[in-house]
Amino acid sequence: MLETLFNPRSVAIIGASQKALSIGNVITANLVKYGYTGAIYPVNPKADEICGQPCYPSVLAIPGGVDVAHICIPARFTLDALEECGKKGVQHLIINSAGFRETGAAGRELENRVVERARFYGMRVVGPNCQGITTADPAVRAYCNFTFTYPEDGHVSIVAQSGGVGALFMQAIHDLGIGMRYYASTGNACDVSIPEILRFYGDDEKTRAIILYAEGFTDPAEFMDAAREVAAKKPVLGMRSGRTVAGAKAVVSHTGGLAGSGRSTEVLFRKTGILSFHNVEEMCQAAMAFASQPIPGGNRVGLITDTGGPAVIATDELCDAGLEIPGISEKAISVLREKLYPEASVNNPVDVLATGTAEQYRAALDVLMDEPGIDSVYINYVTPLFIDNEAVAREIATVSRMRKKPIVCNYMTDKPQWKATTAILKKGGIPCYDYPETAARALAALTRYAALRGRKMEPPVQFNDVDRARAAAQLQEVHEQGRVLLTSCEAACLLQCYRIPVAPVRIAAHADGAAAAAEQIGYPVVVKAEAAEIVHKTELGGVVLNCTDEYAVRDAMSGLQERISAADLKFAIQQYLPGGREIVIGASEEKGLGHLIMFGAGGIQVELLGDVVFELTPVSGPEAQHMLESVKSYPLLTGFRGAPGVDTGRIVEIIQRVSQLVTDFPMIKEMDLNPVIAFKHEAVTIDARVVIHK
Amino acid sequence: MLETLFNPRSVAIIGASQKALSIGNVITANLVKYGYTGAIYPVNPKADEICGQPCYPSVLAIPGGVDVAHICIPARFTLDALEECGKKGVQHLIINSAGFRETGAAGRELENRVVERARFYGMRVVGPNCQGITTADPAVRAYCNFTFTYPEDGHVSIVAQSGGVGALFMQAIHDLGIGMRYYASTGNACDVSIPEILRFYGDDEKTRAIILYAEGFTDPAEFMDAAREVAAKKPVLGMRSGRTVAGAKAVVSHTGGLAGSGRSTEVLFRKTGILSFHNVEEMCQAAMAFASQPIPGGNRVGLITDTGGPAVIATDELCDAGLEIPGISEKAISVLREKLYPEASVNNPVDVLATGTAEQYRAALDVLMDEPGIDSVYINYVTPLFIDNEAVAREIATVSRMRKKPIVCNYMTDKPQWKATTAILKKGGIPCYDYPETAARALAALTRYAALRGRKMEPPVQFNDVDRARAAAQLQEVHEQGRVLLTSCEAACLLQCYRIPVAPVRIAAHADGAAAAAEQIGYPVVVKAEAAEIVHKTELGGVVLNCTDEYAVRDAMSGLQERISAADLKFAIQQYLPGGREIVIGASEEKGLGHLIMFGAGGIQVELLGDVVFELTPVSGPEAQHMLESVKSYPLLTGFRGAPGVDTGRIVEIIQRVSQLVTDFPMIKEMDLNPVIAFKHEAVTIDARVVIHK
Repeated sequence: MLETLFNPRSVAIIGASQKALSIGNVITANLVKYGYTGAIYPVNPKADEICGQPCYPSVLAIPGGVDVAHICIPARFTLDALEECGKKGVQHLIINSAGFRETGAAGRELENRVVERARFYGMRVVGPNCQGITTADPAVRAYCNFTFTYPEDGHVSIVAQSGGVGALFMQAIHDLGIGMRYYASTGNACDVSIPEILRFYGDDEKTRAIILYAEGFTDPAEFMDAAREVAAKKPVLGMRSGRTVAGAKAVVSHTGGLAGSGRSTEVLFRKTGILSFHNVEEMCQAAMAFASQPIPGGNRVGLITDTGGPAVIATDELCDAGLEIPGISEKAISVLREKLYPEASVNNPVDVLATGTAEQYRAALDVLMDEPGIDSVYINYVTPLFIDNEAVAREIATVSRMRKKPIVCNYMTDKPQWKATTAILKKGGIPCYDYPETAARALAALTRYAALRGRKMEPPVQFNDVDRARAAAQLQEVHEQGRVLLTSCEAACLLQCYRIPVAPVRIAAHADGAAAAAEQIGYPVVVKAEAAEIVHKTELGGVVLNCTDEYAVRDAMSGLQERISAADLKFAIQQYLPGGREIVIGASEEKGLGHLIMFGAGGIQVELLGDVVFELTPVSGPEAQHMLESVKSYPLLTGFRGAPGVDTGRIVEIIQRVSQLVTDFPMIKEMDLNPVIAFKHEAVTIDARVVIHK
Repeated sequence: MLETLFNPRSVAIIGASQKALSIGNVITANLVKYGYTGAIYPVNPKADEICGQPCYPSVLAIPGGVDVAHICIPARFTLDALEECGKKGVQHLIINSAGFRETGAAGRELENRVVERARFYGMRVVGPNCQGITTADPAVRAYCNFTFTYPEDGHVSIVAQSGGVGALFMQAIHDLGIGMRYYASTGNACDVSIPEILRFYGDDEKTRAIILYAEGFTDPAEFMDAAREVAAKKPVLGMRSGRTVAGAKAVVSHTGGLAGSGRSTEVLFRKTGILSFHNVEEMCQAAMAFASQPIPGGNRVGLITDTGGPAVIATDELCDAGLEIPGISEKAISVLREKLYPEASVNNPVDVLATGTAEQYRAALDVLMDEPGIDSVYINYVTPLFIDNEAVAREIATVSRMRKKPIVCNYMTDKPQWKATTAILKKGGIPCYDYPETAARALAALTRYAALRGRKMEPPVQFNDVDRARAAAQLQEVHEQGRVLLTSCEAACLLQCYRIPVAPVRIAAHADGAAAAAEQIGYPVVVKAEAAEIVHKTELGGVVLNCTDEYAVRDAMSGLQERISAADLKFAIQQYLPGGREIVIGASEEKGLGHLIMFGAGGIQVELLGDVVFELTPVSGPEAQHMLESVKSYPLLTGFRGAPGVDTGRIVEIIQRVSQLVTDFPMIKEMDLNPVIAFKHEAVTIDARVVIHK
């Protein structure tokens, strides 16, 4: 569908201009300068030629067909131009002009009209308020864009909502010398969307890695489908800015509370198989490795170095990223001992010394490539003045071409002096980095991708023992009463419908009722204050634990009445369950994506140290298990410092049941099970808070 | 003292060679190629000239004086060459050759002999097993080094133990185009040491920032003195590799246990005022900012951008680093509203738009430079094809030269196309970065340095109420008994001597004694198993809390006897203190530096999440306070979620008293107060473990 957009045979520029500092001029000039192989048709009734190209008074006056027409005249003239393009049979419009949806109601209306009329004519629209597209393929060289970076042909394709960031990526890819295939910056994306472009890149054989930058998603579900489909085919490297509060302010904030801004995108990326980055530089440098190297089978790195210090720095960085630098086999060591200098270091890291010859480099490479306990190779290569560096580069390139295991290289040199050596490495497809850390991080990204691609995927379990009808009735009742917050009893009932274990709770307004409730539940009990405005009970002293008899319950209640003044104050009586581990499970609605499920272990760990993880619904068994294993305080659950472990299987099940509950009832806006107390053979919700939509 | 070394009038190369791939040839060629302004004297009895320079059969045959002589002949001939140099009156030797201390006992002996004979002649020695030095000053241009990077003259000086990493720094500084002043790589450093070079750089007026890389310290105390002295004069940027376990294996591990490898260096850096980095790239990019920009007064950043997306990325990165992006004053906003385009964003970040003119850029810069609530300026500058970019660059450069507040610039461009603009920015001293994140991190480094330089410094308190003599006697007694581990009672006694509050403890071997002890202490008590091999009492179930009467004590003891089999099993009886917050204070010997003091709050926080901080003795009041404030769990101490705060002043005092105790007694190898329980008005050590040297 987008084939003609990215590979047009002809491009018209409506609003082409002779004025050097105008968009219409820049686009025409870019097409000429970049060597576009198709026909260039500047459209301007007042000029004869622009940038050496004959000019046409209107798009209708163009002799041949028009695959792509830029519209870079003021927004108010867009519709007229569009009509002419429609009549001409133009296939794609790139509307560079601003002044549409981003400016308010009138602009939005204009944009809607553009979409409507374009559909009428069967034209596709990129933008408005966008840069456009670029194709680096030598057979096309279409620079339908007003930026200034002229990339070489390569295997990385870029799609970015923000033109500024898109241009940054294009420039970085260009500076890294790895070449680009397609570029698109979508702006308002009224028609041609990021998911559609993603799919196009996914189907393009020459695209080996995709760079994706987003600031938000118009249709998250559509994005999710496309991302899942494409990420299954090739590496998609994704970044979304706005991860800090201040950063999120600058874009649209999607999530609230603990989930934090931008958090859902990270979860969305992981769930669909997109490799997530926080950093433009790191992402581009990773793209360089993805563009030429195979994916490692695991996280065990073999290092080859010709100088000591930088290998230590690389080791630090690799280990920080969770990679391992294991020892190598006796057999491998004996081969190295035979081939390298006597002073060389023959275990991992292998130090061939600054005087190491090309043959010795090759021997080290061969050993690591054949070593079963090594998944990838990191080379620290300084170009000493004592050896034949071109020969070394040739050996590295030869081994790289075999594509047995990925190679990255910290190439420490003065490039202008070592042009031939640099060219050999580049031609060999070796991703070369200026710093030990950047090379290490690129290898870490390849390894992280291997783990992501290999993650356990299962369809989510559908529990059939739930009472969906009763849950629906419970929620409906609250809704009909015009409330949004469920009472403790209602929340407990809801959980019970989905077989989520909850400590029985009874509400009492007075001491006599409370005593009776406690008698029924069985001592010891907990007495909690319950009122509409109380959120953090503990902080207000609103919880009295371990009441062992009726007197204790009455004492507790009078104490609570003294401390807390609320017109609707009532008391919740619940079984007291000492011991166990506190965990927290939450769910919050994530517009267009379902719900974001939260998990954390421990009270302070969650609230003070933020040791929580998130997953999007529906949560599968392996995903729930991965959530548990991803918190730092996981050892608290498996047994720590002599304390016994808890029933993690039960927690995994509760997470999945919560996922099913909120998926079945999108009207649930927020839900917090806090705490759930986990014991050796069970886990029980002590307090649940459920908020529904008005 | 090192003036002549770094600015020699003549350099001899003993071992100069016509063989292209030899060190002796490379050094001679480098001196010629780099345009050394002094006399070059190759020494080789078998050659007439090398690299166009007349050759001498021996150093004694050289007509003029010799300031620096390289020795790059095999180690075994070094002493003969040294004698000749001594007789000649050479001032400095740079011994490039390897084969000394790093090879074992014989090499160490040879190195000692070198030092001895050099001292005899009054010669200073750089190395052996080193690269040497480089001076970029146009009046000197001494490239006494066999590497290949030929830096321009500038204001950054580098000193590195590892030649490989030193060369990496030199290349990075060169690639960043900021120029270098001095370079030194010291290798074995048998005579001229890193501290000495640091001092030389500190006294050098043209050195504005120092880059320091170390893998360990021969004389940490000497380093500490020099670092403190130099860091007070100018920014010293420091890095030490080996911060991970695997990385530390590759160098020498200095600390054990929780302190972790390389941790002491980080503490040492902070204590002396060196700005610490983990990352070569980040450090070099920070050096670029330090080389030309003033130090900010605080952490409030004003942003100017001409494109939206990259400003969001910058915001994320700045906020992650603890910087703030505050709103600006009404007055500032109204000036911007008047000067910028109507669609421009006139608060912080200021978006001048891609069509923003030079005058508008200047207006935005002036506003932020004059705004009292802004400490530094971050510019996001993409070079649009629509404006006069050279004019924009000129305005930025003009404002930068006023040096009112530091400026960093994320300069998004294709440099080969924008040479003139780039040159204007460079000449204006604007640190330009390729990525929003790297620019943000450089600004964060300037800001971090401002905070470090402004840290509260006080001499450590000397507590005069301590009983040093009794403590000495206690330690001496244990030592004389041939033990290294103090008993609970001995440890408690030691703490009491230094007025560190400790819960009284009595030891009993049998139930009757225990009951009597409990009676004396007062119920409730804790009963703990005590035996030489028990380290983690809790894990073994060796602690019984809250024994409220004699029966409980007897019960506890029989339980302990059942669970724990140790020939020397005894029982420690201690007052039971429920409630309060657990904290941990530790000390471990740090060779040559005193002791490393550790602080952490909470049990799990320390052991599972590693939320601990370190400081070197002697710890001052502000340093101890800073330790408390630096743990993530600090809010646990000041009051969290309704729980009251504890006596932090008392904790600060205990840290200082522990510092004084271990400083008074270097024989204390390790000491752990774990836990100390802090209450609202006191803090009491519950368990102390003290290990002394044999």
